[in-house]
Amino acid sequence: MHRFDTSAKGVYLITVTPFTDGGALDLASTDRMVDFCLERGVTGLTILGIMGEATKLTAEEAKAFTRQVVQRAAGRVPIVVGVSSPGFAAMGELTRAVMDLGASGVMVAPPSTVRTDDQIAGYFDMVNETLGPVPWCLQDHPVATGVQMSPAVILRILKNSPHCVMLKHEDWPGLAKLSAIRAAGDKGEVRRVSILTGNGGGLFLPEELSRGADGAMTGFAWPEMMVDVVAAHAGGDVERAHDLFDAYLPLARYEQQAGIGLAVRKHLLHQRGAIASPFVRKPGPRLSAQDLADIDRLVRRQDKRLHELG
Amino acid sequence: MHRFDTSAKGVYLITVTPFTDGGALDLASTDRMVDFCLERGVTGLTILGIMGEATKLTAEEAKAFTRQVVQRAAGRVPIVVGVSSPGFAAMGELTRAVMDLGASGVMVAPPSTVRTDDQIAGYFDMVNETLGPVPWCLQDHPVATGVQMSPAVILRILKNSPHCVMLKHEDWPGLAKLSAIRAAGDKGEVRRVSILTGNGGGLFLPEELSRGADGAMTGFAWPEMMVDVVAAHAGGDVERAHDLFDAYLPLARYEQQAGIGLAVRKHLLHQRGAIASPFVRKPGPRLSAQDLADIDRLVRRQDKRLHELG
Amino acid sequence: MHRFDTSAKGVYLITVTPFTDGGALDLASTDRMVDFCLERGVTGLTILGIMGEATKLTAEEAKAFTRQVVQRAAGRVPIVVGVSSPGFAAMGELTRAVMDLGASGVMVAPPSTVRTDDQIAGYFDMVNETLGPVPWCLQDHPVATGVQMSPAVILRILKNSPHCVMLKHEDWPGLAKLSAIRAAGDKGEVRRVSILTGNGGGLFLPEELSRGADGAMTGFAWPEMMVDVVAAHAGGDVERAHDLFDAYLPLARYEQQAGIGLAVRKHLLHQRGAIASPFVRKPGPRLSAQDLADIDRLVRRQDKRLHELG
Amino acid sequence: MHRFDTSAKGVYLITVTPFTDGGALDLASTDRMVDFCLERGVTGLTILGIMGEATKLTAEEAKAFTRQVVQRAAGRVPIVVGVSSPGFAAMGELTRAVMDLGASGVMVAPPSTVRTDDQIAGYFDMVNETLGPVPWCLQDHPVATGVQMSPAVILRILKNSPHCVMLKHEDWPGLAKLSAIRAAGDKGEVRRVSILTGNGGGLFLPEELSRGADGAMTGFAWPEMMVDVVAAHAGGDVERAHDLFDAYLPLARYEQQAGIGLAVRKHLLHQRGAIASPFVRKPGPRLSAQDLADIDRLVRRQDKRLHELG
Repeated sequence: MHRFDTSAKGVYLITVTPFTDGGALDLASTDRMVDFCLERGVTGLTILGIMGEATKLTAEEAKAFTRQVVQRAAGRVPIVVGVSSPGFAAMGELTRAVMDLGASGVMVAPPSTVRTDDQIAGYFDMVNETLGPVPWCLQDHPVATGVQMSPAVILRILKNSPHCVMLKHEDWPGLAKLSAIRAAGDKGEVRRVSILTGNGGGLFLPEELSRGADGAMTGFAWPEMMVDVVAAHAGGDVERAHDLFDAYLPLARYEQQAGIGLAVRKHLLHQRGAIASPFVRKPGPRLSAQDLADIDRLVRRQDKRLHELG
Repeated sequence: MHRFDTSAKGVYLITVTPFTDGGALDLASTDRMVDFCLERGVTGLTILGIMGEATKLTAEEAKAFTRQVVQRAAGRVPIVVGVSSPGFAAMGELTRAVMDLGASGVMVAPPSTVRTDDQIAGYFDMVNETLGPVPWCLQDHPVATGVQMSPAVILRILKNSPHCVMLKHEDWPGLAKLSAIRAAGDKGEVRRVSILTGNGGGLFLPEELSRGADGAMTGFAWPEMMVDVVAAHAGGDVERAHDLFDAYLPLARYEQQAGIGLAVRKHLLHQRGAIASPFVRKPGPRLSAQDLADIDRLVRRQDKRLHELG
Repeated sequence: MHRFDTSAKGVYLITVTPFTDGGALDLASTDRMVDFCLERGVTGLTILGIMGEATKLTAEEAKAFTRQVVQRAAGRVPIVVGVSSPGFAAMGELTRAVMDLGASGVMVAPPSTVRTDDQIAGYFDMVNETLGPVPWCLQDHPVATGVQMSPAVILRILKNSPHCVMLKHEDWPGLAKLSAIRAAGDKGEVRRVSILTGNGGGLFLPEELSRGADGAMTGFAWPEMMVDVVAAHAGGDVERAHDLFDAYLPLARYEQQAGIGLAVRKHLLHQRGAIASPFVRKPGPRLSAQDLADIDRLVRRQDKRLHELG
Repeated sequence: MHRFDTSAKGVYLITVTPFTDGGALDLASTDRMVDFCLERGVTGLTILGIMGEATKLTAEEAKAFTRQVVQRAAGRVPIVVGVSSPGFAAMGELTRAVMDLGASGVMVAPPSTVRTDDQIAGYFDMVNETLGPVPWCLQDHPVATGVQMSPAVILRILKNSPHCVMLKHEDWPGLAKLSAIRAAGDKGEVRRVSILTGNGGGLFLPEELSRGADGAMTGFAWPEMMVDVVAAHAGGDVERAHDLFDAYLPLARYEQQAGIGLAVRKHLLHQRGAIASPFVRKPGPRLSAQDLADIDRLVRRQDKRLHELG
């Protein structure tokens, strides 16, 4: 089985959290969604992230959802759980709870209140104290957190964090940063960790693979795009990786819009049969008739293009 | 007894959360601190705010602390609980829990993610849905939240929020805003709610009382300062209110420093016997020898000045 | 000739400012670049924007460049000049200078210091006072300014600004906002102004044209992409518009990266013969060997795709 | 005469820029204001800062005002000019202009766009290139700039900047930072530069002097407060320094309010005869009747208190 450690590669899909049309947590759809992802070849699942509506769940719901995902995945792929919290007490509590439920590790992003390099590094010293031996993924996502981490500070965190096994690289633009961190690992200046990218929602995936990324950790209603692009690239067919990527790009671009993107994704996952309802909890966007027309056109064009590609 | 409604006045003290030297929640000190506040004449207590280290508590600790405060206060003053949360599910859960424990109402600040007037107003529509009939206080604290609410948007929220009974006015500078909102209430453009101020940690209290504030909701190791200033002002002796205020101002200024202020406050409350330990949970500041020397000097000078005032 | 008024449509290209390899303003390349743009069918030029390195020019250089562009364009297309400034004195000075040199109008974005709807609207009242009868374009670009303008506040500005003739729509995501503003114009709630889009650097151009945008105002080393997409869309061939757009999208996406994007654009314009040197003044990014390899691949793939499209 | 170098001490007053009631630059009042400051014992003048309405002046006005101040001061005290600019071309131009007019040096704050330690340090490398041998003051003012500079990054800048002679320390709270930077200078880890404080508008002046500050660089309508506090402290009478400070604190606190503070200061300087008109250019606050009543009371109380102090 795939393991959540520094050797991780492939596609860790950021999953949505399925609700019923009435807004209740939908555990049946949770099973269906896990199957949908695994059938498409993902090598890991990341739950309770921003796009998983984590903050809209009660503590009980978060645990029930985690339990269901872990049970359905049944050890076939690692499950990583977002545990970023306003305080360390809550982060520690949630971490213990999800590890007890069988999660493989956790993911942490810095809070918007840290700014200087010293503040950022100091924050992750406390994360390490809080998490203890639990393997974790460092999420670098300035668009969401407002925290800009230079390559220097990321290397500093990696040096101080023996149980950090992965970097979720989501800075945008971030190609130079990715190259710098990979180079430091190759030169032995720092432990080599797994780097999965989510830069702009995966919108630079082929270029990032060429820079040494081990795969992707992001969400998209067509997980097979990322799985196939990563496979083609790993197999040495870089042009094929780009061809596939380009075929999905117009829709991926549309789904990655901030705010409305989650509604687009759930709409598409619902259309594809992965979840029973596209319901998004408040506060959340609703799709307009114009949005739906845009999406229909993009899906139709994508199908045609993929058909041409073969 | 004092009630948490639109007629509220006086001083709602923002309390600290006492820990032992080892960092555990200290329920014995909680009782002592409640007594300390009530003996000094406060008319309400606000717990689990930023200065109450709310985010550093586990869910169980937050409830245990709330239970203890409510029991010790024993109905003598209303207890208001900060319930600002990253999501409405958590806000609703905490609200139900603390109201069940006997709290009088809750306090909500907007999240840093809302920016435009429409976003802010829309956010509080969802707060109203979440809180239902629970009386609540609107916290306007841009320095902490990054959200700037114009007088127009505050009036809009008040119009849409039948159960909002109080504005905690903490914008800085905020005298003109306070005047504008009070004027709108006096002209009947909006329901008159209680306005308690915390502007700069109470550093404009006498001026705010002259602008129509009903009192203060903030923290300071000498709650009697605010109680006495409000009483003198209410009694028509504005110069006496200023004299008292000025005597405490040098130390209040020092205690209101961002970051280190909480450590100063707990140190002073410990010195005054209100809590058993000045312990602040991480992440939190530590006082240096120079800080302690500053504080000693300021306390000594304050004692002298108060003695002269009589 | 095309006029800079509420009827404006087509493509207003955001131009770069050409320098020599030594970093001096290159007026010969300025002529070549103007010709390059006009030969590709743009209907206007916008100079001294963020991507025009406006803040890196001395006052004299800004005027010399404006003079050169105006003279070379020779009345064939309108020239719009970015005049956003930290203060109104400088804004007024620059506006008078460039209008005297023959510019058709100016463009203004709000400063990062305004936050509430009232502050934003109040700021543009002062812009109107400063600009007087000069026609101007309102730039809504939150990613660069940090200012979020709701549809309501944009409509309020348009109502108060008789000489505002155009909205440069650059919010992201911004399709719903574009629809809302266009609808208000169609219903007569507000004067209909020209709306040119730059959303994400033009990355949503076909969808925005379907929402009623009159064209694009953004930069890209292939201005003919926008010209052809707008023409196809205007001619009713929406699928052709998408086909063209999709062919350019992988490279456009790469060129629109924040920070490094300008270096990519100048590199490509240099390769295409539009400017003599790709020099970017400090502070500015430099392209790495990996960046150049990415670009070469994307250009080659784009050429192939365009050839297939015919 | 006092020199603008690393030995600078005392009070560098941040001056206002006087206008006539009609809004024109008032050069006659400029002379009067310079005299007013020098008569009260300041050891330097800092012009064209935020509180000098620098961004509201045309380039010609900025030069005319600088020329007048330099001529009137006639070499008795150094004149430092704020030259923070959106770009280095403008910064270099303004620096050359004011040095040619006889200024003693310049002051630079980082732009709000730099965030990480590397970005901040890199920015000041370019400042050094731009300024060449001109002596300059590093302004650390997070409340205005949004840039948080850790002690580590300030020391790094000082090491890289042979012509930086002074730190204007305006972080709030900033006592620990001041102590750390002073300690590094005392240990020889970095060149010892002059540190003048403006923390919260001088609201921590006595404590900062105890931490090793060489004086103050800030504005207040009673420059003699800072002059006398610094003198008492330097003379070893720390209690007297506090007594004086405390007497002015209630009004200083009021004048240091963001936004409205400049109008308060100009009103008071007008009342004291230092300038002919309290006019503030747009965008700027206006004082209400309630503000004026507050100010009258505070001035009256301050006079009484100073009289008691003797």
